[in-house]
Formats: sequence, C-alpha cells, structure tokens
Amino acid sequence: MAICEILSVGTELLLGDILNTNTQYLSRRFADMGISVFYHTSVGDNPERLAGAVRTALSRSDIVIATGGLGPTPDDITAEICCREFGFELEFDKATADKITAFFIAKGVEMPRSNLKQAYVPKGGTVLENTHGTAPGMGMKKDGKCLVLLPGPPYEMSEIFEKHVVPYLSEYRSGAIVSHEVRTMGISESRLAEEFSDLLSGENPTVAPYCKIGEALLRVTARADSAEEAERMTQQVIEVIRGRIGEYIYGIDCKNTEDAAVPMLRKAGLTVATAESCTGGLIAKRITDIPGASAVFKHGVITYANEVKVRELGVSEKTLSDYGAVSEETAVEMAKGIRRKSGADIGLSVTGFAGPDADEDGKSPGLIYVAIDAQGFTECEKIETGRNERDYNRYTAASRALNLIVKYLKTELKI
Amino acid sequence: MAICEILSVGTELLLGDILNTNTQYLSRRFADMGISVFYHTSVGDNPERLAGAVRTALSRSDIVIATGGLGPTPDDITAEICCREFGFELEFDKATADKITAFFIAKGVEMPRSNLKQAYVPKGGTVLENTHGTAPGMGMKKDGKCLVLLPGPPYEMSEIFEKHVVPYLSEYRSGAIVSHEVRTMGISESRLAEEFSDLLSGENPTVAPYCKIGEALLRVTARADSAEEAERMTQQVIEVIRGRIGEYIYGIDCKNTEDAAVPMLRKAGLTVATAESCTGGLIAKRITDIPGASAVFKHGVITYANEVKVRELGVSEKTLSDYGAVSEETAVEMAKGIRRKSGADIGLSVTGFAGPDADEDGKSPGLIYVAIDAQGFTECEKIETGRNERDYNRYTAASRALNLIVKYLKTELKI
Repeated sequence: MAICEILSVGTELLLGDILNTNTQYLSRRFADMGISVFYHTSVGDNPERLAGAVRTALSRSDIVIATGGLGPTPDDITAEICCREFGFELEFDKATADKITAFFIAKGVEMPRSNLKQAYVPKGGTVLENTHGTAPGMGMKKDGKCLVLLPGPPYEMSEIFEKHVVPYLSEYRSGAIVSHEVRTMGISESRLAEEFSDLLSGENPTVAPYCKIGEALLRVTARADSAEEAERMTQQVIEVIRGRIGEYIYGIDCKNTEDAAVPMLRKAGLTVATAESCTGGLIAKRITDIPGASAVFKHGVITYANEVKVRELGVSEKTLSDYGAVSEETAVEMAKGIRRKSGADIGLSVTGFAGPDADEDGKSPGLIYVAIDAQGFTECEKIETGRNERDYNRYTAASRALNLIVKYLKTELKI
Repeated sequence: MAICEILSVGTELLLGDILNTNTQYLSRRFADMGISVFYHTSVGDNPERLAGAVRTALSRSDIVIATGGLGPTPDDITAEICCREFGFELEFDKATADKITAFFIAKGVEMPRSNLKQAYVPKGGTVLENTHGTAPGMGMKKDGKCLVLLPGPPYEMSEIFEKHVVPYLSEYRSGAIVSHEVRTMGISESRLAEEFSDLLSGENPTVAPYCKIGEALLRVTARADSAEEAERMTQQVIEVIRGRIGEYIYGIDCKNTEDAAVPMLRKAGLTVATAESCTGGLIAKRITDIPGASAVFKHGVITYANEVKVRELGVSEKTLSDYGAVSEETAVEMAKGIRRKSGADIGLSVTGFAGPDADEDGKSPGLIYVAIDAQGFTECEKIETGRNERDYNRYTAASRALNLIVKYLKTELKI
C-alpha cells in the first residue's frame, strides 16, 4: 500500500495563528482512497528547513503532498524549494500566466507584477488548475515517487484536490473504498457506540461513531475489489442501522440538517419562513447556504428584542410576561406569527438563551425552544445543552430547528 | 533563542478523525513565551516511527513537547518510547498510583488494572500533575535539552501546560514577543506586500501580510528584552502603516469586521437593523455572534424574494423593474426601509448574486451592493468579487457591509 506524507508550509502555522484544517481534510481523503498517511509535518517559510523537510519526506514516503507557500510574495518559496529538491526546474507557463491575468481582469483590479511569479510551474510536471485563485497546484512524478503542491487556502486546496489530485493519484489507490455517513440528531455518540458495539468491532465494513456539534454520526466504510461490491456491503450495514435507530436519522451523506431539509422542501413544493431570536439569523443563513434555496425561502425575521416579537410577529404581551421570551408558548406564537405574516407553508422559530452567562430571570444558557407551525401541525422542542457556549448553543439550536422540518416532512407528509 | 518542536502522537490524527487543535494551542503559547517553534510533526502509535520522530526532534530542537499516547491501552506507547530515546527509565510511582486510584474512587467506578500503567514515570524526571484525568504529564531535562509528555485530550493538556509546563520551561524563555494584527478591508494581500516591501524585509519588528476570506492583514511582531519595549516597537510600525493605508484599516487585533463594528456601536450608543437579500441572515448572525449584541441590534429581516422587499421594506416596484433587485438603487431603498421600519439609528442592507452561476438577467455571481443609511448619511458600495463561490461571496458581502458601519462611525462620527 502506498505511503503518503502531508507537509504544511507556513510560519503562521508555527505561530499558532491558524488551525491546520488542510491536514485533517487530506488525511481523511487519503484514508478514503486506501493510501496510508504515516507522517504530518509543518515547517515555516524558511528555505533550509523546508528543503530538509521535503528531503526527509521524499525519503520515507511514496507521495508527498505540500500545502501553502504558493502565493506571490517573496516569502512564498514552496514551489522553488520543493521542485529543486525533487529535481524539477521551474519554467514560465504562458497558459497559466494568461489565466492569472484573466482572473484580475474579471475582478476589475490591476494585477500586481508579483503575481506572475505564480505562472512558474515545474517543467515536465502537471499544472493542476485552480479556478478559485491565482496559484495553480502542481504535480510531479519521478522514480515511482510523487510530489504534489497545493495552495494553502482551504477552499482552493480542496477544489484542486477533488478535481485534479484524486485522478492524478489513481495509480496509488488500492482496491475500492466506499464510505457513507449516517447522520443523526437527538442521540449521543456514546449511545451510538453502545447501540452498535457489535458493528464497531467489525473489520470490513468498519463502523465508527463521530461527534459533531450538537449531533453524532456513524461512518460506514467498506473495502472491496469493486466499488459496486463495496457499495453493497455498506448498504447492508446501513439497513441494520436504520432498523435500530431509524427515527434519529435525518439523512445519509448530508452535510448537515439544512442539506437534508432544503431538498426535501423542494421535493414537497413547500416554502418556509423563519423567526429567530437567539440564533440571530443563523437558521436563515444556513437555509440560504444551499444554492437554489430561493425556491423554498422568501422571508425571515430576526426579532432579537421583545417589542419586535410583538410588533412583527404578533406575539402577545401577556405570553411574554406570563411565560417569558424563552418559553414554549413564545416559540409557538413566533412560528405561527411568521407563517401568517409571510404566507409561507411552514413557520419555523427559535427563542432561547445562547449565553455566555445566565439571563436576568435565572434561566440557564443552553435553554432553547424551537417550534414549527404548518397546516394542521404544530410542534415545539425544548433543548437543554447544559453548555455556556454561545456558538455551540446557537449552532445546535439552528440544527434542531431545521431537523423539525425534516421530521415534519418525513412523518406527516411521508416525503 | 530556544527552539521547540511539537510532536503529536496518534493514528487518529493520521486518519483525519480528529483535528489537531493541541498543536495550534501550544504553538501560540510558545510564541507568547518567546520560544521559537520550527517544526510540527504528527506520527501514529507505531513504535519504530515514533522512535524515529523523537530522535529527529531531539536532534534539531532544544525542547520537544509530545502530546497523546499516554493512555492505559497497549497502543499507548509514548511514555515508553520517548523515555527510552531520551535515556530515561520508567519506574513505578506510588504517589501517582494513589492519585489514579483516588480518581476512580471519586467517580464511583472500578479501576481497570490497565490504568496502573499510567503510574510509571521517568526516574529522575518530573511528574506534571493532571487533575482532570489519570495520565500525568512528564518532564525530563538532560544536557540542555528538555522533553515534555502531555496527555492528548485538549482539556487535560492545556491545564497541565498552563499550571506546570510554563514554570518548568521558564529557563528557556527569552525576552518578550509582542504581536499585533492590522486588519484591512478593500486592499489585497499582494498590494499590501508591494506597499510595504520595505517593512517586509525587516527582521525586528517583522511585518508579514496574510490573506483572509475577502480581506488581508498585516501582522507586526517585535521581540525585545521587555514587553513594554516590544510593544513600543510594534506601535511605531503600526503608525507607519496607518500613515500609508489608514483608510483601509478597520481595526487592530479584531477578529473580523463585526468584532470591530459592535464595540464601536456600543461606544456610540447607536443601534443597527439589517435588511438582507443574498447574505440570507449572515450579517445579523455575525453581529449577534458577539456577546452583548442585544444592546445594538434588535431587528433584522431577510427579504429574499422581491415581493417581500416591497411589502416589508417599502422598496418601490418601479426601482425593482427599472434597475433590478441587484442594484445600488434597491440596496439604498432597503437600507432606508429597514431603518424606517425598525426605528434603529442605522439601516444596513445587502443585495446581490451570491452564485453559483449567473442570474437570469445576466449579471455575474459576485456582483453585490451593500448600503448604509443613517441620519444625514447614505452610502452604497458595489462589490465585484469575480468569483462564482456562494460562501465566499456571501461572507465577503457581509464583511463589507459591516465595514460600512466602521467607516461611518470612524469618518462621520469620529468614534
């Protein structure tokens, strides 16, 4: 099996200014491809130490993939040093230069001359096109070894990786690996681990529980000679999982609850409108993260203050004084109010304490109500995260609210 | 100056199952302490490769700090391998064993016998107490070099580090390092690099440009005998930067534009209301990310559909048909509309094409207008990102909109 080393280049990593998410991304993808990663190395923008790290990596691995340091400034030295160590020369590439120039023209900005540095690519290597930025990726192969250079910005790195590096490395892959994620909401990672202790010890397919913000998932991975066979093996296991905890599953291979909810709404031909308090726009933001959301989402309001809940949504002052803004009663009136006001098929609402620290009336951070209102259907869920973490509580509240849509469409409308 | 290497041990890192946040944490703290980190290395729970990585690290660094692999199971080999490579023997420590036993008694759980493995510590070394878990940290010093082992769970790692490792490494600290980030908006990383080519080659203070989503920053770092002197040195450089590109600076050491805008609004005693189209709630979400935002933000609307812009904000049908929803005219009417409707001091709006792909009337993804309306002040900015990336365009639009608040408060109200 081929061995890979991931080399991250950038002084900002060594200073702790940025978190090395690229390395995790690449590690996971190499695991999917059946390529073993034995080392991660990070080194600064220093010619000598970078050269040493590349030499070491090439001596012990078949594939070395380096990210970062392909920018236009003088401290971007990855291309120069790595190519030299691997025995490739850099040469000016007119096609790449034209793309860089076009990139600036499209932005209506004058190109700094320094950007043409990014048009130098390894002679005899492969240019891996970057449609999101000016630094192309580069691939070189020699004596059974392979060196790939990718820009550091994660969205550029991952796009080039998926489009160009995966096929470029096809000869190093072993067998076929198929992996699916069973996404759940409302059941903990440790509960999943207990419930599926029999499957967790399997070697092929493997089943592994993971914890995400406010939710848990099971990753099912099978390895076989063909993709069809590996796919069949994973589906068998997914059926077992469905049989045991089906009610908690909101989707397979969805990225999150909006990724499940929006396509279901489109399929049902229904629209949703949102009324948010503590999430402050996050639910609407997550719905509209999905391209094409305009078919299902027209209108949302953020009613952060109580008087705005009354004025904009018709929440009654009595409800607010009797039960408080953070209550099932208020959440339901908000959902009904936005549905009425917007004319949408579904009204979705959230009200709660995101924290940090307790609200004046002594309720705890992490106490949140999410509610849904639709034709002949109203439901409210109480959430108690037990955490005093604003981001966690807001994200979890939004996920649970979006999951109300999934549950409604699944159980009531059989979508 | 002392040189440090951070060594992470664990196959789960190489599989991409977990993100290496420990290394970022430690890197940042070493930078604070004036200790240079030159390498990060991650290696799996494999005796040979771990031994090799420790040898390499000890050969090129004064301090090696390893995290992970101190657990009770057979694949936890960090203590054994690292001590052997550094020439220390492990011995049973009764005091540590008693603490581990007490830990289980306190939890009311029977102690697995395997946990006593964690009571073996280096003879002649220092035990670094872990109050959150059973694996103690360990420190060893020899011939001017130092090896520190810490457990992998971030919560345990950081507590031992702050309480015990910082004092343990006091002899390696050199002087003081002070670093500041000059955050800018509307000027590219390469333009910054050109504008400050004279400062970029300086050795102390150092100035380095970095690219963030839709913006760029300059990091200014100085090293001196005292923190006061280092601070003075950075401030001198920051003054030079202000003198040249002051109009692009939205803050020093802010995390982002909301982090600059919200405290400024609080200081000015002003409120803002938002009217969002393509950002779909992201601006409101980012404002309310900041704890205490309720003092400055009460109300926002997401008017994704044209009819909602008319109904909720009073945008005129004629404006929409004459200029289109994505136009300066619509953006300005949205900002005025939300200000009027909400009674806030400032109305902020955005309308644009986030992409992917072009809208029906042929305008390009990345074409976005952001507008601000306040007492006697209205401004609109046109943005053309030139990118067909929804996330990038939405984030950038929100940043630029929030920057309008900063610019208004700075230039008009002199906040």
